[in-house]
Amino acid sequence: MQDKLPAFSDIEAAAVRLRGEAVETPLLESAGLNALTGGRVLVKAECLQRTGSFKFRGAWNLISQLEGAGGVVAYSSGNHAQGVAAAARLKGLPALIVMPADTPDIKQANTRALGAEIVTYDRATQSREEIAGQIARERGWVIVPPYEHPHIIAGQGTAGLEMCRQAAARGIRLDAVVVGASGGGLTAGIALAVEALSPETAVYCAEPEGFDDYRRSLESGRRESNPSAAGSICDALLSPTPGELTFAINRPRLAGGLVASEAQAGRAMRAAFDHLKIVAEPGGAVALATMLSGAIETKDRTIAVVVSGGNVDAGLFCRLTAAG
Amino acid sequence: MQDKLPAFSDIEAAAVRLRGEAVETPLLESAGLNALTGGRVLVKAECLQRTGSFKFRGAWNLISQLEGAGGVVAYSSGNHAQGVAAAARLKGLPALIVMPADTPDIKQANTRALGAEIVTYDRATQSREEIAGQIARERGWVIVPPYEHPHIIAGQGTAGLEMCRQAAARGIRLDAVVVGASGGGLTAGIALAVEALSPETAVYCAEPEGFDDYRRSLESGRRESNPSAAGSICDALLSPTPGELTFAINRPRLAGGLVASEAQAGRAMRAAFDHLKIVAEPGGAVALATMLSGAIETKDRTIAVVVSGGNVDAGLFCRLTAAG
Repeated sequence: MQDKLPAFSDIEAAAVRLRGEAVETPLLESAGLNALTGGRVLVKAECLQRTGSFKFRGAWNLISQLEGAGGVVAYSSGNHAQGVAAAARLKGLPALIVMPADTPDIKQANTRALGAEIVTYDRATQSREEIAGQIARERGWVIVPPYEHPHIIAGQGTAGLEMCRQAAARGIRLDAVVVGASGGGLTAGIALAVEALSPETAVYCAEPEGFDDYRRSLESGRRESNPSAAGSICDALLSPTPGELTFAINRPRLAGGLVASEAQAGRAMRAAFDHLKIVAEPGGAVALATMLSGAIETKDRTIAVVVSGGNVDAGLFCRLTAAG
Repeated sequence: MQDKLPAFSDIEAAAVRLRGEAVETPLLESAGLNALTGGRVLVKAECLQRTGSFKFRGAWNLISQLEGAGGVVAYSSGNHAQGVAAAARLKGLPALIVMPADTPDIKQANTRALGAEIVTYDRATQSREEIAGQIARERGWVIVPPYEHPHIIAGQGTAGLEMCRQAAARGIRLDAVVVGASGGGLTAGIALAVEALSPETAVYCAEPEGFDDYRRSLESGRRESNPSAAGSICDALLSPTPGELTFAINRPRLAGGLVASEAQAGRAMRAAFDHLKIVAEPGGAVALATMLSGAIETKDRTIAVVVSGGNVDAGLFCRLTAAG
């Protein structure tokens, strides 16, 4: 089951499951962003999704289909943790999240506030996958992986389904779509939706400088790794290497990978504040950053980008946007 | 025409005119805000509307119906100016905005960026209504008033229509709705929509401390005035007295008026940032502030509030939310 690639019909089925539970996030546009790019920029505001990122979509698509499970286990220090905790609570199941011991208190507190139990581990010496696997076996609970599962990918793909339908309803033809990539689940789901609904649209992934494993993997044709596992403010986009399933989907479908620096991500957070009135976290702003930095040609083109999350502390937000 | 009260059918007609032009803003909810209030809080995020506030709705509803007009004139230093400028450009008409000479450069620049011409006046010695009236007569252009017009009120009411339908689609019964009031056009439009679609729901207006003319007018039964015309960070909510038309609609329909302090508005801006990932300007956060401050009973009740705008400088935003 885990190894089966999802199809577009799985995304359509996920959209039915998510109806009334997930936010149909708006596809925003502003005269200011259009003027800055010389083109037309449409922003799928997934920071407005339940729990502040797109992660609830995949988590609910998987967890809502569980039958007879006693609980769920996930490993994540950030957005996936909150998405899983919220989805489990909605399903009436207990959730346990394996988090690094150095996870900021605020993220631990947010996850606990959603009813989840937290187990911490030492990043330097322990494997989160092993810890999660052991707990799942002991308790007979189900692991909800962050991207390597067809239900997760199909759930994230509903953001792309909505985006294509929202654009079509306004008579808009998309030249390209840009999506921030970490493990690549959101990108894969959106690539499947775009292939079905808007096949002439090019799909790009976007990554922070120094963490462009997906871009390099698309170029070399095999799954490349990042030299380091930490060290960027874009904490949502630091997976070490593309997922196997997600790469199988993305490799033949993506037009390429784009890169933005931390400073460019900060300026994109400020642009999202000024022109769209949304809160983007650093990793959530990377796709928009590629539009504003010239990493992709924008002149006279219509491009949709996903702002994938908004879970950022107010202090960091203000420091980064002041520099923008 | 200007003196005729709008009916619910006018709001339905406005919604058809706005389709595809205005954003259908989401009705957001978060576990965090619900926990803070002990009830259920739904936020109609009009800061995500085109031009960053609900004002585009009324402006487009009026301007899209103009036939044979050579242009439009409005007086406003803020959100109405941008709404009118954007609607006029969409209609292909020139727009002139009368603004106080001390309007911040950024707001003048934003309005000019939307294609409008700006004429400034001295707040202390000149009347903006007279200046606008004279220009309109000279040029044969049409004045777009900020709230005293049935088309404006009906346009703003589409926010209420959407809110009621979004709640109903999720099976949610609203105990109350809270809307920030300045001239009272948004409140009046929403009161008409709620009366038609959710008649058991109580509607309240919300104002900044010291500028509670609407609250006092509802109590006394006649249009009261504020002692001062300026001096609050809630710059969107400083109209000196209720509109005649809007008061005729609101007086028999509102359950009362609520008040929030500047500090409470700042804390509500921070709560909107933390829990909803939206940018609220001070005046736009006043309705939410009444929920968080205990001005209205929230325990075990379901209440929708409108966050009416997000046009705030990053510097001010960070100062106000840091205090929250």
